Amino acid sequence: MAHSDTSTESLETVRWLGGTDGVLELIDQTLLPIELRRIQLRGVESVWEAIKTLRVRGAPAIGIAATYGLVLGLQDATTLGRVEFLRRVDDATAYLASSRPTAVNLFWALDRMKQTAVRSEPSLSGAELLELLLQHARDLHEQDRRMCHEIGEHGAQLFLDRGYTRLLTHCNAGGLATAEYGTALSVIFTMQDMGTSPHVFVDETRPLLQGARLTTWELAHRKIETTLICDSMAGHVMHMGLVDAVITGADRIAANGDTANKIGTYSLAVLARAHGIPFFIAAPQSTFDLSIDSGEEIPIEQRHAEEITHAFGRRMAAEGITVYNPAFDVTPADYIEAIITDRGIIRPVTAKNIVHVIGVV
Amino acid sequence: MAHSDTSTESLETVRWLGGTDGVLELIDQTLLPIELRRIQLRGVESVWEAIKTLRVRGAPAIGIAATYGLVLGLQDATTLGRVEFLRRVDDATAYLASSRPTAVNLFWALDRMKQTAVRSEPSLSGAELLELLLQHARDLHEQDRRMCHEIGEHGAQLFLDRGYTRLLTHCNAGGLATAEYGTALSVIFTMQDMGTSPHVFVDETRPLLQGARLTTWELAHRKIETTLICDSMAGHVMHMGLVDAVITGADRIAANGDTANKIGTYSLAVLARAHGIPFFIAAPQSTFDLSIDSGEEIPIEQRHAEEITHAFGRRMAAEGITVYNPAFDVTPADYIEAIITDRGIIRPVTAKNIVHVIGVV
Repeated sequence: MAHSDTSTESLETVRWLGGTDGVLELIDQTLLPIELRRIQLRGVESVWEAIKTLRVRGAPAIGIAATYGLVLGLQDATTLGRVEFLRRVDDATAYLASSRPTAVNLFWALDRMKQTAVRSEPSLSGAELLELLLQHARDLHEQDRRMCHEIGEHGAQLFLDRGYTRLLTHCNAGGLATAEYGTALSVIFTMQDMGTSPHVFVDETRPLLQGARLTTWELAHRKIETTLICDSMAGHVMHMGLVDAVITGADRIAANGDTANKIGTYSLAVLARAHGIPFFIAAPQSTFDLSIDSGEEIPIEQRHAEEITHAFGRRMAAEGITVYNPAFDVTPADYIEAIITDRGIIRPVTAKNIVHVIGVV
Repeated sequence: MAHSDTSTESLETVRWLGGTDGVLELIDQTLLPIELRRIQLRGVESVWEAIKTLRVRGAPAIGIAATYGLVLGLQDATTLGRVEFLRRVDDATAYLASSRPTAVNLFWALDRMKQTAVRSEPSLSGAELLELLLQHARDLHEQDRRMCHEIGEHGAQLFLDRGYTRLLTHCNAGGLATAEYGTALSVIFTMQDMGTSPHVFVDETRPLLQGARLTTWELAHRKIETTLICDSMAGHVMHMGLVDAVITGADRIAANGDTANKIGTYSLAVLARAHGIPFFIAAPQSTFDLSIDSGEEIPIEQRHAEEITHAFGRRMAAEGITVYNPAFDVTPADYIEAIITDRGIIRPVTAKNIVHVIGVV
């Protein structure tokens, strides 16, 4: 983190500055909404740390940051021979992949980068390999941007057709979580672009308050009518008849449609069903992990107790107790009305329909 | 607040020190679990403020504090004639009742005090009336203590009979919320007294974290195995098969059994049903309000947006948004397996069974 500024000219979460000797610039999401600070990262370790500590978060954004992190990790490898260079690619991808265990986009993006290196022309020099990898990272970044818009268009059309304007979301699946428009929030932003005025209930999303800190910030930025609630209020708001549909992002989707997403998503899906409210997931193709049959195989990251027991360094709970702090939960496919992807809408959510819509990844 | 100390000799939430010229001492619950501070209140205004700002909270404890608050409010009325004295009783009870709108124990306890004054011997002097009211406050306090134990015994026996040892609770319905043992937590404490080792999942209970701050503190104090979770994790924990039963307190119960309790209780009840887990309410007779037919008539207190948007003075959400912050929600009777009262267990929860168990209040 050599440099920081607080300009507001663009909300791009992740950007690469310069050529192969460039730096990765991120919005430090741990400081929002108090401060919009961009940090410049040099070296693969600083990217690992930024992912681990949620300076950058959101499944797609983590994947993009990791691809640039790999480039940073290879900047000193341009004079190496091919075998040595590829060994360094192996090491750096394994290292970056160890930062967080649940979101599959991280592994997907790193695997794409690795395959690009392995399958490259054998005659390429280290410098040329690095150039190739940077170009591939840029391509994946651009691809993510396009995917967000495609998700938004498919979802907005569906919601407008059904007359859904009063929505509820959890955590942050917006521009901060992706290259640009987001996944779940892309649907909402695109509805606005199409001339409707959605109203969005936002779960604050304990323990790290991504809903309160990030989603309300993105929605307020676009002047979308927003009501912040505590996670425990969602059922009450549904019972009052104030919600047409629930929509969230995803961190990993199994072959059968079971979906891992921020802890609390499962409760929302169960509450939505109990109130006859449809529950939607919005996610790009890269969030699907067809190598696993069901959600039971998705590893769930456990995070530090202090995220719950402390607030700004001040202890909020008694000593001598246990804390359970899973970062994610798994919502069974059966609870999901449809998965809105860049390739189209998966409905009903079955293994067959998933392959039909997104192809075999 | 003339005086404070940090002794730990007793956990009595509310106590009266002295005679009719005495003071009311409370544990300031806004400071827990960081600090166990007792504050001494003089004057009815300081009691109103303590209830409003949740220095004392929990439906039964609010009722007890208010009865002593009335005594404080009448200490300068001992030289008045009966008519004037009763007018002051009217004024002070109306004032204290305005502190919080949902919990019925507050109105119930103040009404008992008022009736005691109105129905007293006409020959009593102001000083004698004050003495009578203090004695009645002490009686209600002692009655609450007994009720807690009776709730605990009925509930513990039921849970032991059914083999429920892995429990989940929300907010704080413990000693801090009552004269001594609590309502929901009294069941758990009594189970422990009977030689079993319950394990309790505690919802942190946003926005004011009564679960994290108060319930874990009470449970840890008694060395009961406790796991703190965020409210949004309850569904996930139920899905994992870790919960035998859910039990909470109540702030007001309508004639048909619909129950107002801390916001989030309704979601828990819906989630419990979806997982085949029984959901229990524990409450004394004074929490029933048979004057209203159903939960639709229970007024729900709305609290300040800052309880959600800020933490320790630091803003956690964007500007320019709306916040919805109801303090309570209503769980329909249909979701409640049984209401555990001091008079016995109401099961199934119907208007008829309520009258049968608690009588016409």
